[in-house]
Amino acid sequence: MEIVLASKVLRANAEVADENRARLEALGLVTLNLMSSPGSGKTSLLERTAEALGGEMAIGVVEGDIQTTRDAERIERAGLACVQIQTEGACHLSAPMVRDALGRLDLEKLALLFIENVGNLVCPAAFDLGETHRVVLASVPEGDDKPAKYPEIFLDAAAFVVNKTDLVPHTDCDIERLKADALSINPELWVCALSCRTGENLDAWLDWVRGLVRTGNAQG
Amino acid sequence: MEIVLASKVLRANAEVADENRARLEALGLVTLNLMSSPGSGKTSLLERTAEALGGEMAIGVVEGDIQTTRDAERIERAGLACVQIQTEGACHLSAPMVRDALGRLDLEKLALLFIENVGNLVCPAAFDLGETHRVVLASVPEGDDKPAKYPEIFLDAAAFVVNKTDLVPHTDCDIERLKADALSINPELWVCALSCRTGENLDAWLDWVRGLVRTGNAQG
Repeated sequence: MEIVLASKVLRANAEVADENRARLEALGLVTLNLMSSPGSGKTSLLERTAEALGGEMAIGVVEGDIQTTRDAERIERAGLACVQIQTEGACHLSAPMVRDALGRLDLEKLALLFIENVGNLVCPAAFDLGETHRVVLASVPEGDDKPAKYPEIFLDAAAFVVNKTDLVPHTDCDIERLKADALSINPELWVCALSCRTGENLDAWLDWVRGLVRTGNAQG
Repeated sequence: MEIVLASKVLRANAEVADENRARLEALGLVTLNLMSSPGSGKTSLLERTAEALGGEMAIGVVEGDIQTTRDAERIERAGLACVQIQTEGACHLSAPMVRDALGRLDLEKLALLFIENVGNLVCPAAFDLGETHRVVLASVPEGDDKPAKYPEIFLDAAAFVVNKTDLVPHTDCDIERLKADALSINPELWVCALSCRTGENLDAWLDWVRGLVRTGNAQG
């Protein structure tokens, strides 16, 4: 009974996700669904990306939170167009929530759209939002066992960003093990270790994003 | 439809949770449900607690993970009796899963039982397991906005443990703000900031646990 209903919910979600995807692709708009545990640095990565790329391309953000508008306020202070979704308890974003948010953005003017999912390394994996790519973040102080313990979310991701490399000297996290475990789950992952705090290796992330937008707009 | 089913699942869970609670209380067994994001340090706190209290009292652990037996292996290396639950994708433990695990432990011999929930700051909050108390962990590098953004899990908790205080000098986390926000959600919380890595303030946690076990056994 539970399983039947779950499939029904996921099927309904998938239909709306396909509509979202068609709409975004028709505009040539690259959409990245950012997923991680609470506090891995999704909003910090968006702030850094806004600072660096905001002058080059028009970026929008759909900000998902269970409660509060704190992240949306941070994104707006960083100068990006932002729509907040408050899920009111739900542990992940769904395609219908994103469809409603898309209606409140001036999509024609954008080249790149980020969707910041609810902080949760489990549930968001099951819900396609219509994004071009999924990006999973984890951070050094969380430890190097996260891909092995939460493999599902890595399966359909295009990129794995390891944040907070500045904390490596103060933890036992082995970044090479983290990378190897993630790649054993999904060998297609583009993996990038960086620090939003110090800016270390942020250029690699920015270049990856630039490359996607170039290709996306050429297709659109 | 979704909501009806969710209530039905939660009602069925609550019934089994009440059975678990009655069984554990009859034995005078203090049971703590540890909940946090992935990587906040639930297993590390258990390892430290095992080292310090393992000689004083018999401690058991029910270890919840989506995949892998890594945490259970760490707990067994620390010398505690441990039963592993693999949720196979489920994002939280449920009372029936815990009931099955209790059947595999020699409960009569234990004075203290930990249940380590799946790493998730959202979903476990909705599922009573029959525990005596809930303990929420967060760690310094996750940032000081977690109580405000994920309030639900703090509402019914007895204690809030802030781990990784050794990383305070390397982050922007304001521990006083973290505590104040958690207490504004639940003024009854016992709050303790410590470091499993350095052992800083671990004694406060151990004394709190000792106090619970003393009272629990007097009642049982």
